Amino acid sequence: MTQPGALFLSEIRGQPQALLRILEHTGDYDAVAAEITKRAPTAVRLVGHGSSDAAASYGVYAFGVLAGLTAMRDSISLTTYYDAKLDVSNAVVIALSQSGRTQDVVEYAARMRARGAFTVAITNDPRSALAEAADTTLPLLAGPEKAVAASKTYMNELASLALLAGGAARKTRKIADGLRRVTEQMSEMLDPLSLRASEIAPAFTYVERMFVIGRGFELATAREVALKLTETCRVAAEPLTATDLAHGPVAAIEALFPVWTIASHDETLAAVVEAAVRARAAGATLVASGNAAAKIPRAAFMLPVPKPSRPAFAPLLSVVAGQLFAAALSRAKGLDADQPEQLTKVTLAQ
Amino acid sequence: MTQPGALFLSEIRGQPQALLRILEHTGDYDAVAAEITKRAPTAVRLVGHGSSDAAASYGVYAFGVLAGLTAMRDSISLTTYYDAKLDVSNAVVIALSQSGRTQDVVEYAARMRARGAFTVAITNDPRSALAEAADTTLPLLAGPEKAVAASKTYMNELASLALLAGGAARKTRKIADGLRRVTEQMSEMLDPLSLRASEIAPAFTYVERMFVIGRGFELATAREVALKLTETCRVAAEPLTATDLAHGPVAAIEALFPVWTIASHDETLAAVVEAAVRARAAGATLVASGNAAAKIPRAAFMLPVPKPSRPAFAPLLSVVAGQLFAAALSRAKGLDADQPEQLTKVTLAQ
Repeated sequence: MTQPGALFLSEIRGQPQALLRILEHTGDYDAVAAEITKRAPTAVRLVGHGSSDAAASYGVYAFGVLAGLTAMRDSISLTTYYDAKLDVSNAVVIALSQSGRTQDVVEYAARMRARGAFTVAITNDPRSALAEAADTTLPLLAGPEKAVAASKTYMNELASLALLAGGAARKTRKIADGLRRVTEQMSEMLDPLSLRASEIAPAFTYVERMFVIGRGFELATAREVALKLTETCRVAAEPLTATDLAHGPVAAIEALFPVWTIASHDETLAAVVEAAVRARAAGATLVASGNAAAKIPRAAFMLPVPKPSRPAFAPLLSVVAGQLFAAALSRAKGLDADQPEQLTKVTLAQ
Repeated sequence: MTQPGALFLSEIRGQPQALLRILEHTGDYDAVAAEITKRAPTAVRLVGHGSSDAAASYGVYAFGVLAGLTAMRDSISLTTYYDAKLDVSNAVVIALSQSGRTQDVVEYAARMRARGAFTVAITNDPRSALAEAADTTLPLLAGPEKAVAASKTYMNELASLALLAGGAARKTRKIADGLRRVTEQMSEMLDPLSLRASEIAPAFTYVERMFVIGRGFELATAREVALKLTETCRVAAEPLTATDLAHGPVAAIEALFPVWTIASHDETLAAVVEAAVRARAAGATLVASGNAAAKIPRAAFMLPVPKPSRPAFAPLLSVVAGQLFAAALSRAKGLDADQPEQLTKVTLAQ
């Protein structure tokens, strides 16, 4: 028997290796990116649930900033339930699923393909139903992920989307080189960050609700960190953009309501700092993470990460702080992050 | 001096009249819808914050189901912060803002217009900066909204989007007739529903967190109800699709964690019922709302609303149950829904 949460922690720590594996297959990404470019898509339609949906948020920014392409988190139910008559003949569909067995994602991909969209499956199981339904498949190569809470499959979904978006801008090589450097930064930070997370987490043992704030590229991180806290620590953690906070949720804040902020050096930093100041003024305890964590004034706790060569890579490092914190808090709460209550690794919900 | 929450309650009750006002101007909607159709847009890009962002969720389904057009909640920061080089020459932009003064929405609309998109402002103030920035403006005609928490401007945003989407499908008249019937149903339900909400709300006085579940058209309702609960009742209420719940958040549920479900008669009903059953199995107390509330098994509380002539109209009735409940709970908690802490009517956050 392993310790509770041991699988989750070991998979978090295995992320640099998982990332390196995907970088050995950049040729596959180049080929799919060339096909995407050939289509000159009016939209890149991204779908997934849970962590894969958080990764889809990253895709919106990766395709927009790196390739100047409109990407969107598509509504699955619009197609699978309402059978909306959308013209997707010029669209590219990217369906993300760790297992490749999420029913409505498979159904969505099949229908989109039948309607003429170029459909790409990104999955850890290249022999799954999703892979079969799509025109082409890019395997995540994350290795077996046994903890119910995803970590390295999320990481490799980010890398996949960065490689595809970079490829669509004919920058595959540069993106791959940048990602290689990220794996080094990640390896170096794992020990000190893990220690730091273990020191901080016990103070949150009785916390029941949190907000997690990010913007731009780091919105994906906010969504993924909130999901980790929710599923492994039973904290009702809600992801918000820096601007969302001011449009309502700040009213719910009080002194016992921690707010996790992800501040990274890019054009959105000022907005995140402004939101943090607003949350602190409302009484919140602030946790500052991201590569610009030091820019958050009056943060009670800090989990900074290194600055990568491009803002687009920041989420790959920032999320690790949240994963390690969730693993430590889950332990402090006496929970088992490897097997949260009510959850299964493959979700077959409608 | 008015009673705390009196403005909010009176504006909720004024929604049938607000809706009728917009129906006197269907000609304006026809004209803009004709322009949208002429453009044959590759995407309808919707933006807004807070309640306007919840309304944008409705727009995704209204344009998709009624007109077969791809609509998306666009990322504002992709354009205002990252200055992504998107081709929007074939796009239609719909910018939603009660005040028309939300800074980044105005900036976004101006940039999109400069890049060739056809930009439509939907705002309660037709002389606002947003109206000036856009190609054309459709006034919300909701009348003065003084409570910080939006109600009738949200309602009229839904109606505007239904009229525009219906117009793009050359069904303005049918949609307008359907909406007129909705105002009658709404007027009839207000008294009994208000009483019911007042009876139920006190049981939630010490609740600190909730999930609010909807799918398809009713995802907008889930988002708006969660926002009302957060801003007027200081409940950390997170909106989730029926499927989101199973992909993580269900793990956080316990007996003291109520789950609000919006079940309406359409193709998504089975998925919502499945999610409710899952939440109940995890120990949650269920509140069932929507026009198919009776289909939610083992709900502890019910706030059903009438069934409209089309599923697309359901959110206009469903949201009222949430608004009335939030007003009643805010009162039970001794809060002032008209003026929540930390909030102002016009949000100038970045």
